[in-house]
Amino acid sequence: MSTAGTAVPDLLGLVAFGELLAFERMAADARLAPDLRRRVELDQMAAAEIDNYRRLADRLAALGVPPEEAMAPYVRPLQAYHDSTEPRDWAEVVTKAYVGDAITDDFIREIGHALDGPDRALVLDVLHDSRYAEFAAAEIRLAVADDPRVAGRLSMWARRLVGEALSQAGRVAAERAPLTALITQAERIDVPELFARLTAAHTARMAAVGLNN
Amino acid sequence: MSTAGTAVPDLLGLVAFGELLAFERMAADARLAPDLRRRVELDQMAAAEIDNYRRLADRLAALGVPPEEAMAPYVRPLQAYHDSTEPRDWAEVVTKAYVGDAITDDFIREIGHALDGPDRALVLDVLHDSRYAEFAAAEIRLAVADDPRVAGRLSMWARRLVGEALSQAGRVAAERAPLTALITQAERIDVPELFARLTAAHTARMAAVGLNN
Repeated sequence: MSTAGTAVPDLLGLVAFGELLAFERMAADARLAPDLRRRVELDQMAAAEIDNYRRLADRLAALGVPPEEAMAPYVRPLQAYHDSTEPRDWAEVVTKAYVGDAITDDFIREIGHALDGPDRALVLDVLHDSRYAEFAAAEIRLAVADDPRVAGRLSMWARRLVGEALSQAGRVAAERAPLTALITQAERIDVPELFARLTAAHTARMAAVGLNN
Repeated sequence: MSTAGTAVPDLLGLVAFGELLAFERMAADARLAPDLRRRVELDQMAAAEIDNYRRLADRLAALGVPPEEAMAPYVRPLQAYHDSTEPRDWAEVVTKAYVGDAITDDFIREIGHALDGPDRALVLDVLHDSRYAEFAAAEIRLAVADDPRVAGRLSMWARRLVGEALSQAGRVAAERAPLTALITQAERIDVPELFARLTAAHTARMAAVGLNN
């Protein structure tokens, strides 16, 4: 293990379980697609998550940590996030995918710098393919163009997604001290500043699809 | 198109949408796994389905048929099958995966012989990886060993799965004449005989995991 103690498997376990759950939920949400073309697109977006999962699980195994063990602490909070944010229609599905993937990517990019060598390269490499973000963004714009009142509803929905994610992130941070230390020590990251950066990027993304934060 | 008219895209569309739905449903069912190791195993079983979907969709595209168009006729019957067979627990999840994949494979193998050249090779090549069947079989045996009364419940469940599948297959056969003709013309397949062979294989598989048909 190149970086400090259990923090690296902790981080890889978090990202790995995040990918696994995103995979399951997106695949389940695909049934809400208004047509087969969109349904297939979301299924393929989901499938990309499990490809990433596999790479992270392989790395954990190479570090001598069973992936199940590294992921276990995150089952409850990540499950709670998804259970409290069940999309009710296609517009909510694509907004959740758009918001969730992007915040995950921003977070991974920030903490990737806290890692060394192969872990850093791996983590920075599992960022999501931007063509899926473009697909989700285009679907949101279409829904908003179709009915301008949708913008208000989806803006509220996105705030709920971020609120629930932050609430679970807070629980994880409190329970996983080495992980939190790793994140905060990364290039002397200041937590309020990290949050400010993540929020600013999120706000810009919301504006890009006609939603407000 | 090598084999007769619309029958080949019809068949590829059927198998492709079957794979896509199996992918979505297995991924959604993974939440019922009793632990993370099994959950990951089912997720990977699901992911294998979308790999197959992609190959079938690529072949359809190469034949000049949009995959969405070829799959459209099967959305309703396959969705109806899955909606009427929602597993309630892990034992039902693995039994459904075991029964469903195996009958699909038997069916594909039978009708694969009705195809020519690349279509035949492709269809015979998307048969499921036997390691997943072995995983599902082992899980069923474990559930039965754990509580012998489970055998009765899962036997009934498997009969329901087959009954619902046959009921939907009957609808498809009635609505898709060229597909039915392709299947029945394959080496002069006699439909009652085909059913008898599929049933015999299913009965043997049930016995292999301690269930009865």
